Order: sequence, then structure tokens, then C-alpha cells
Amino acid sequence: MASEVTHLVIFTPSGKRGRFPTGTPVLTAARQLGVDLDSVCGGRGICSRCQITPSFGEFSKHGVVVKPDALSEWNAVEERYKSKRGLIEGRRLGCQATVQGDVVIDVPPESQVHRQVVRKRAEAREIVLNTSTKLYYVEVEEPDMHEPSGDLERLCKALDEQWNIKGLHADLNVLSYLQKTLRKGEWKVTCAIHSGSGLRPPSIMNVWPGYYEGSIYGLAVDLGSTTIAAHLCDLQSGEVIASSGVMNPQIRFGEDLMSRVSYSMMNPGGAAEMTRVVREAMNALFTQIATEAGIDKHLIVDTVFVCNPVMHHLFIGVDPYELGQAPFALATSNSLSLEASALELDLHPLARTYILPCIAGHVGADAAAVALSEAPNLSEDLVLVVDVGTNAEILLGNKEKVLACSSPTGPAFEGAQISSGQRAAPGAIERVEVDPVTKDPRFKVIGSDLWSDEEGFSEAIGKTGITGICGSGIIELVAEMRLAGIVDGPGLIGSPDQTGTDRCFLDGRTYSYLVWDGTATGGPKITVTNRDIREIQMAKAALYSGARLLMDKFGVETVDRIVLAGAFGAHISPKHAMVLGMIPDCKLEKVTSAGNAAGTGARIALLNTDARREIERVVKDIHKIETAIEPRFQEHFINASNIPNSVEPFPILESIVTLPDVNFNTGGDRESGAEGGGRRRRRSAR
Amino acid sequence: MASEVTHLVIFTPSGKRGRFPTGTPVLTAARQLGVDLDSVCGGRGICSRCQITPSFGEFSKHGVVVKPDALSEWNAVEERYKSKRGLIEGRRLGCQATVQGDVVIDVPPESQVHRQVVRKRAEAREIVLNTSTKLYYVEVEEPDMHEPSGDLERLCKALDEQWNIKGLHADLNVLSYLQKTLRKGEWKVTCAIHSGSGLRPPSIMNVWPGYYEGSIYGLAVDLGSTTIAAHLCDLQSGEVIASSGVMNPQIRFGEDLMSRVSYSMMNPGGAAEMTRVVREAMNALFTQIATEAGIDKHLIVDTVFVCNPVMHHLFIGVDPYELGQAPFALATSNSLSLEASALELDLHPLARTYILPCIAGHVGADAAAVALSEAPNLSEDLVLVVDVGTNAEILLGNKEKVLACSSPTGPAFEGAQISSGQRAAPGAIERVEVDPVTKDPRFKVIGSDLWSDEEGFSEAIGKTGITGICGSGIIELVAEMRLAGIVDGPGLIGSPDQTGTDRCFLDGRTYSYLVWDGTATGGPKITVTNRDIREIQMAKAALYSGARLLMDKFGVETVDRIVLAGAFGAHISPKHAMVLGMIPDCKLEKVTSAGNAAGTGARIALLNTDARREIERVVKDIHKIETAIEPRFQEHFINASNIPNSVEPFPILESIVTLPDVNFNTGGDRESGAEGGGRRRRRSAR
Repeated sequence: MASEVTHLVIFTPSGKRGRFPTGTPVLTAARQLGVDLDSVCGGRGICSRCQITPSFGEFSKHGVVVKPDALSEWNAVEERYKSKRGLIEGRRLGCQATVQGDVVIDVPPESQVHRQVVRKRAEAREIVLNTSTKLYYVEVEEPDMHEPSGDLERLCKALDEQWNIKGLHADLNVLSYLQKTLRKGEWKVTCAIHSGSGLRPPSIMNVWPGYYEGSIYGLAVDLGSTTIAAHLCDLQSGEVIASSGVMNPQIRFGEDLMSRVSYSMMNPGGAAEMTRVVREAMNALFTQIATEAGIDKHLIVDTVFVCNPVMHHLFIGVDPYELGQAPFALATSNSLSLEASALELDLHPLARTYILPCIAGHVGADAAAVALSEAPNLSEDLVLVVDVGTNAEILLGNKEKVLACSSPTGPAFEGAQISSGQRAAPGAIERVEVDPVTKDPRFKVIGSDLWSDEEGFSEAIGKTGITGICGSGIIELVAEMRLAGIVDGPGLIGSPDQTGTDRCFLDGRTYSYLVWDGTATGGPKITVTNRDIREIQMAKAALYSGARLLMDKFGVETVDRIVLAGAFGAHISPKHAMVLGMIPDCKLEKVTSAGNAAGTGARIALLNTDARREIERVVKDIHKIETAIEPRFQEHFINASNIPNSVEPFPILESIVTLPDVNFNTGGDRESGAEGGGRRRRRSAR
Repeated sequence: MASEVTHLVIFTPSGKRGRFPTGTPVLTAARQLGVDLDSVCGGRGICSRCQITPSFGEFSKHGVVVKPDALSEWNAVEERYKSKRGLIEGRRLGCQATVQGDVVIDVPPESQVHRQVVRKRAEAREIVLNTSTKLYYVEVEEPDMHEPSGDLERLCKALDEQWNIKGLHADLNVLSYLQKTLRKGEWKVTCAIHSGSGLRPPSIMNVWPGYYEGSIYGLAVDLGSTTIAAHLCDLQSGEVIASSGVMNPQIRFGEDLMSRVSYSMMNPGGAAEMTRVVREAMNALFTQIATEAGIDKHLIVDTVFVCNPVMHHLFIGVDPYELGQAPFALATSNSLSLEASALELDLHPLARTYILPCIAGHVGADAAAVALSEAPNLSEDLVLVVDVGTNAEILLGNKEKVLACSSPTGPAFEGAQISSGQRAAPGAIERVEVDPVTKDPRFKVIGSDLWSDEEGFSEAIGKTGITGICGSGIIELVAEMRLAGIVDGPGLIGSPDQTGTDRCFLDGRTYSYLVWDGTATGGPKITVTNRDIREIQMAKAALYSGARLLMDKFGVETVDRIVLAGAFGAHISPKHAMVLGMIPDCKLEKVTSAGNAAGTGARIALLNTDARREIERVVKDIHKIETAIEPRFQEHFINASNIPNSVEPFPILESIVTLPDVNFNTGGDRESGAEGGGRRRRRSAR
């Protein structure tokens, strides 16, 4: 069919161009030029992945005029496809349309194998789709008695000849149904092939008879101390088709990491029990998310997990004992490529699991995932990335160098260990303002857009009512109390006389502040006690000290920008975080939120296997700082418990807000704001 | 310690030599010269694997005089080792003794890594020890908080630095106890490392604290249609430490292969049921064999299986449906490298399984194992290898070319489908002679060395008595009956008149021959019926036809030598096999027995991983002949049912024995000897 007459074919958006004989299919031209044009069926007009949009007319930019007959006429295969499944106006099938004249051909994003996955944040790096497992349609030779070879060997031969996939492995699971499937598909099948990893060959994950029209899926999971959050992704489109989370059931063995380590130390079989419950919770979550998305969970062929080292070890079935004491030795620090079944996950029988590498004994795969998502190693300016959680991961760096540490903030930021604290859920106070004159608060609760002093607030919150204060609420509240002069720098709540409001009341040996009294309608009385302030001080001091320690190690006094990460980090008001002294001084507009960056990192690693190799390289270059043995960390910690720390300069903050110069310590026997013993006790429990 | 003065060091038996400075440890010199000197501890004086024997005096052959002080003095490490475990007189530890002068050093076989494993048969090829899994002692760096890395990563680093083992994989199973083991061994551990295979990286199988003094084990298993035979081998010495066998419990679903295939076709779940029972039987056998050898079966880290295609598929969990009909397509023909746990084998949790490649749909991994053991592909002369079993595998070839086929002999050769037949067990008649004059038999039974007409025979056989005739017994008996003129060429037993003995008696419509009447003492009456003769004729015709077909394809009328293999093949008398016409005409001294060659092949593949690569290559070059579709096979089969076939020339045989020219067919309605319908029915059931 092809003649010696050649035509100029220009592909957009790549700009790749070449001359091809009359009759060359567009898909063939694209492949020869290395244009990223998808195909599962190998040009047989079945899969429609190779859709392209030819452009006609004069293209001065390209110096070419495209005539209406530059491509072959619409053919029967395209007609059938269009009538059966529909085809966007102007689209052609790249394997059917052949070159008949000079032509400009656009490859729409959904026809690109390595298409970009949309991310909501403008500043975020792109995710290029390159999943571990892809679909391939092949035609297999029938068996021949005179040249005996196994069905599997002929399938592998076909995959080599038609897709250039070599050295394939097949599990017994595939062998168990392969013969029936090949015959049912009349020697035409679709294979899901895992491309392999450093140590492992490519392998056949699944075989369907004929052309398989469905998709395959993957899970990106952020296994946190408190919550397990999962994104279910379509591995062909890269899209998140469902997201869900559950509480980590290990909470019943201890709220924070060290109490779980202690539990395993104190209880024979305790570690195994925690392993069991977290795997069970995973399976329940995966069943739920698959049901929600309306897919068969046995189509989930790949999973990526990120987690801190203790969660990591408990998940893979290693007693975290050594992580509870210096030198905090990990059983393994490298990334892990496993069978999901080795973790007792009930997904596709051959589903794989990839767990990102850990950075150090206290800086886990979750921090690696944050590094992958926020890429401080690629940043021109100096960025501080703070992943706020029960254990905070902190990264500081730029393209020259990246430092990392973790800091045990405890669960206060998640609303735990706070008298009126609760998890972020409807009814929780999440935003607060305190009037500097009246000292009265106004607030918003999750589930309503109205402030508490706005008309219709009571109706808006409905039956749920006001149930407590979540992490972001308590941060704003303490910061606002400080700004309103209700709390002094060392962290003491003033008396009614000192503050001029009856909302402050003696509560034991210290004062508390009344936020909301719902008792008249059977609701709770929501207060902030001086112990709550202490908890927040401990937590923020831990966070701040970690960041300061990295800044010391980097030899800087300020950072160019700050990224707050973590499901909770997304909801923190930068101003209040700075008033509280959680984060170093920085221009407010340079403080951004990355949402669940660890979860995003997991999703990147799920969708792009190159990113796995990338983070493995990056992690090796990250310089780890162990806060537990750094004397400067303790020093910073003690200094940082004030709100904000008067020792450290906050010039930018002071240009925005005025911090009242109050001191409520009357020299009595009340706790000293700078004491910080609770935190130190927790640390020494390691 | 080493000075610039160098000395000549000559190693025997390798003859490797080099000059080394004063003070060089012998082990170091050996390693530099590539001398095969074992060491598990890496020269730390712990393992004593590097024992050597220095020779002193004048060696004109090597042109060297070795003085008594050519090696350093006996040292404290050697003294301690000798007092604790003993050391053969004259032996030194190669890692302790250092070179002080010119010296000749012998490496005894047990100090060689790649030592030869003794085989009983003179003509058999050597087995060079090179197992998949070996032991390595290492010293691991302790963790350092400032340079965080996982314990596993430091172990891998040590294995790389001390043993040059790279790219190691470790399973979660190892990770689960690694940290405790490293600390228990004070950062010194012994690792069992699987060297990996084509598609898989080397991996850590087990870690023991300190120096592990025990061994690791492997199983070579011949999974036959009728019996499962296993050899338990010490992977360090290569020795078989126990052998055992059990009946294949699949027998209850069908005696021969095709009836099992039929069972799976007729019964939903039938294949899965047969998979389950054979795996259960394996586990029971392995427990028994480990108990017998007094080892923990969880120290069994490697297994090799050989089996015919139907057994192969049922074992790996593939329905053998396709093997029951043309074109007899295998699900997979290549070798399989699996986790033993994938086959539900309860051995070491990370134990591996290697299954040899299949040659074709009817020529399995057992035939490949026979090829590995008997190496027709390396033979200068033309060798016919016949593995006699329920399904016979036949190989014919020399170093130019090897042909293979299988032939469904049925279970008659194993004593089944024979009226007085039984398996080879005490009480079974295994050797027979029939007096050509009196027509009376004399025989030997398993468990006694006496002939039945010798003094003390009754006492020797004791309580067991005479219970039946085993496979080798029935072959000899039928051949002897033919030689004595009791049976004619077409296979009919003569009447008392025709044969001149009352041992022949009318039994239905044909005659039977009385071998032994034990009814007086409550024992059985052992006879040979004309139907028994038919069964043997069918079986031997199938075997002979397969061999003849390969000879046709090879273009030869005779072969240079014949190897009878199979547990049963070992007991066949070559003369009787030839009288019966089981095997082609050949000089009797050129007919040898290889015992269970398939099992030996499995043992070779277990002990030497290079042999696995070798047989994979060899199998690809073997030319497969499918008997089921070869018209010449049917032709040979019909011609071959006579005893022996008068159509085919047996000149050598006729120079040894005289075949009586008798014909008992009186033209009546009795079965025709050349009919062979039963066999054809079985074949057509495919």
C-alpha cells in the first residue's frame, strides 16, 4: 500500500515531525517518531486508545498546508467503533487513518501513555503517568504437536514479538487459568503486565480472554498513627476514583508511637496483635473504597504505602522494639517491593506493594513521600516543609541540600489530650476569633459556613450542635487568646481581674477560659484549661524546635517559604501558627498548605514508577538529624515553649500583629510556662 | 607481617601455583589463585572448612623442596579447634597457617566447595557440588544514629564487602527476626544465601546468630504416577542422608495418567482434589523423611521435582484437561522456579522449588531428568534410554542429536492389572526360571536370597510367605515361559497336551499356568493367566514401539547400548527383557541399569544449579516425537505384540537363546495374540 511518495507528518503538542510514505497508519508514524500515542491492542482497531485529531488548513508556524484529504477516508472499523462507543467529533483512530498528504496531528492528553495527571495546586509538580502495570492485547500462536511448547511460552513469545516485553515471569495463579482463557479468547487475550522492578523481572499479573475493556486499579495509602487514608486510582487514566479513610485501630494500644512501642515491649505478642489489627483495618478500608467506587477489589493490582517507621515495622510484621531506644535502628531502611499477599491484603491475588524508603529511625516513608510530593531537593529557594501530625516530619532544604528530622509533637494538634478536644468532624470548632476588647470569642464549626455570632448559626449547626474543638481550632483559639491578652507569653491564663472578663475562671489551681456553654440545651461546656495551653505549648515547641534545629544545621536564621503539610496542616491558619510560634517567622504569603503531602507522595509513586527510583535516590542524599540526641533540640525546646518565644526574633510577625505585654505569673506555686516537663518525660520514655 | 620475600605455593590436586610473601595465609593464597578451598567464616578460624594438608620433602615433579617449617607454627586457634572438635593428623586450618617457605598443599575433597558427590555407578557422570543455597558467616557494622541505615542494609553491606554478594533480596520472614538475631549474635551471624536464578536476585533464606554449626538440606523428588520417591540431601556435603517413598494417593482417581485426566474432566473440582491429595502426601513424606534423618524439616531450603506432564500440572495446580487431547498443549513447558510455599509445602518458610522443564505434552520433566542423569547428548555411541514406568519415557541419541518420546505402557510393569501381580515388596516373586524340560518354575522372592528349590527357602521367607509377582518377576516369568515353550510367539499359553505339563490348565476360554499353590498353608494360588500375558504384551509392545519409532526417526536399525531406567528398570533382567521383546536387539553386556535415573536427575539438579541451566539448554535441543500421531507407532505396536516379534530381526538374541517354534492357536475362537485391542482402546481414550 505504501508508495515512494512521502508526506510531512507533524505531531502536536510534541512537535515531533517526519516524512512518511502514502498509506502509513498514523499510529505507525507516531511510533517511529517516538510520539507518545497510546495503544493497548497494538493497532488492531479494537482499543481506541490511539485517538488523534487531525488539523486542516494552513499552518504558517509549521510551514505546511493540510488539505482535507490529508488522511485516508473514514473507514469501517472507525464507523463501527463510533456507532458502538462513540467518538468525539473530529477524532480519528490513529491505527486506521493513514497518511495521504502533509498533515498536522494532535495527540489529545487522554491518548498519551505518559499523560499528566491533573493536580489541584498550581505550585505542585506534575505527575506523569507511568504505572507499574499496563494492559497489552496480543494474538498468540496455537499449539502445534510437532513443535511442542507450553501455552505460557507461546504467550510470552507473542508479548515479546508484539510488544517487545522480554524475560517475563508468570505466577502459578496465572498458569492455573491460562489455558482456558487462551481458548476462550480464541488465542487473543489482554494481559496486565507488571513492568518489574530493580530486582524482579516483568510479570504477567492477569490474562483476560479477547480484548479487555475494563481497567485496573491501584491504591495509594497513607498509614498514619491516627488515621489510614487511601486513594483508589484508575491506573489507565491516573485519576483518583475514590478516597476514604479509617481510624488506625492501633490507637487502642496507645495514642502515640512510643506508647505503641511500649505496648509491644510490655506485652508478648503485642506487636503481632498490632500488625494483625492494622492489616484487618486496611482490608476493611479497601473493601469499602472499592464498593464505593463500584469496582471489583480484585482488580486492584498495585499498592503504595507511606508511613512512619513504627507504623512501617508494625505493618510489615517487624517488632518496633529497636525504634524505642537509641540508636533507633530500623530493621530495613530501603524501599520494599512485596507481594500484597505477604501483608495479608486481600486484593488481586498477585497485587504488589511498594513501600517508600525510610529516611531514618524517626523519619519514615511518610517523610520520604512528603519529599517526593514537595520536592525540596528541586527548590530554588530554601523551603521548610512541616508535616504536622502526632509525629511531625520536618524537611528543610533547596536543590543544594536537604535536611530532615522528626519531632514527637504528640496528639494535641489532632485534638487529643485537650480537655474539650476532638477530631476534625461536624460539630468541632475549627476557626476562632477573640475580640481584644470584650474578650469574647466567635467561631465557626465544621459543617457550617456561618460564624457563631451570625444570624441562623444555631439552625445551621442543627442537631449536631457544638461538640468540641479540633486541632486547627485549638491553635487559633490559643493564638487568639494570646493576641487578646488572655494568655501571657509563658502560657498562663489570666484571672478575671487580670483579663477583665468573667470567661476566665479559677479551675483548680489555674484559670480556664470559657468558649461556649451549651449546658442549657444539654450540650457541653467548652473551655480551654491551662493544661490545654501546656499541651499545645509542648506540641508547638516540639515542632518549632525541630525546624529551628534544621535551620541551625543549615546555617540559616530564616527560610524563604514554608509548606504546611498533613491532613491537619491543610487547615492551619498560617498567621495563628506563627502567633503561636509553631513555625519560624516567614512572610505570611510564603506560607502555603500542601494538604496531605504524604498521601500525594504515595499517589505519585503509585502512578509513576520512575518516581520510586527518584525518591530512592533522593532519600539517600537527605541528611538526617536525630532530634533525640541533639542538645540544641532540648535547648530550642525549652526556649520555644513561650507563646511566642521572646528569645527568638519574629520581626515579620510583629509587623502584622501586636502581642500584648502581659505576665500573669504572680510568683505563686502555679506551673511555670517554660517548664515543659511533660514533653521531656515523653521523650525520655524512648 | 608480609615481607617482600616470596615463596612458591603449589596446590594439589588442581596444580595451581603462585608466589606469595612470607606470612600470607594459605586461604588467602588459595583465593588469589582461584583454588577451590571452602570457607564459611571467611578466614576467622571458626568454621574449619578450609582444612588443608601440607606435604613436606622433595617434589621432583613440581621441582620444589618443602622444608618442615614451610608453614607457620601450629597456632592457638588451631589448637582450640583440634581439642574441641578434632582435626585429622597432618591437617591445618588454611586461614591460620601462613606461608613461610616453598610449599605443596593438598586440598582434601571435603575442603573443596565444588567437590564431587560420589555416585555408585562407574559409568555415571560426576555430580559437582554447587548448590543453590550456601552458608556465609559475616560480621555486621553496628547501627549508628548519625548515619542511619537499616539493619538489613548493613547486613547486605557486610555480605557484599566480605563475600562479594550483591543485589540481595530479603523476605519479610527474615526481617521479622533479623534485629533480634543480629543482637543475639553480637553483630556476627551466619546467613543461608540462595544464589538466585535467571529471573531472581540472590536472597537471604535464613540468618542464625553467631557461627551456625548445623547444615541445610534439600529434597530431590521423583513424583511418579504410582509412587513418590524423595531423597533428602545435605546441601553442604551433597550426601543423601535419607530416602523414602510413598504411593501417589492419586491412584484412587485412576491407575494411569489418562484415567486421571478423565477423572478431572468428569468431576468438577476433580483436578483441584488431585492437587490437594498429592501435596498432602508430599508433606507427609517430607515429615517422615526428616524425622527418619533426625533433622528439623524447616531446615529444608531447596527442593527439586521431576514428574511427567500430567503429574506436573496436577502438582502445580493446573487442570491437565489439555493434556488429554491433541495437540496435548502444556500450560508451561519451561522449568519453574517457585516458592515451595506456593505448592503448600511445609518446609523452611522461604524454601524454593525447582521443577525441571518438560520436553513435550507427553514427555515430561522426568524425561528431562533422565536426560540430565544419563546425558545421551554427551554420549559418543548411540544410546537408547528407556525409563520404564506406568508411562515410559524413551530417549535415543548421541552427542549429535537426541530424540524423545513417551509411550503409555500402563501399570502392568509395576505389577498392576496382573492377576497375581503386586508391587515390589517382601513376598513378591522377583526372579524366575522355568525348566525347559519339566516346565516347573523356580523363583526368588523379595526378602530372601534363596531360590524356591533351595534348602531353607520356606524358613527364609518366613511369615510373609509368597504373596504375588512383582513387575520384574512377571517379565522374567513370561520370558521363561516363552523359552520353555509354554507360551507361543503370539502369546498363547498352551494346553497340558501341547506343553506337556499339568501346570497349564483351562481357565475360562484360555489356559493359565500355575506358578505356586500356597492354598494348603492358607497362602495364595499364584498363576499366570492368558490375560496377564496380554497385559504384558501390550505394555512391552508400547515400550518397544516407542523405541523403534525413535530408531526409525534416527534412521538406524540398531543401537550401541541400552540403559534401563526407572525404579523398576533397575531390576529387569536384560536377557528376559529382550526375550520378551521389550527392548530392541542389543549385546547383553551393553544393556545396563541406571536405577531411578529420573530421581538421580532430580538430585543432580538439586546439588548443582549449573545442571539446571544445562538441562534447560539440552531440552530445547531434544527433538520430540509424538507417538499418538505417528502412524508408524501403531504399525510397530501391532507388530510388536508377539513374543518376540518374528517380523523384526533379533540376531543377537537368537545367538543367546533358542526360541521354541510353537504355535498354540488351533484356529478356535480364542483371542488372537496379535490383536492388541486393549492397548489401542486405552490410547484412543485420549
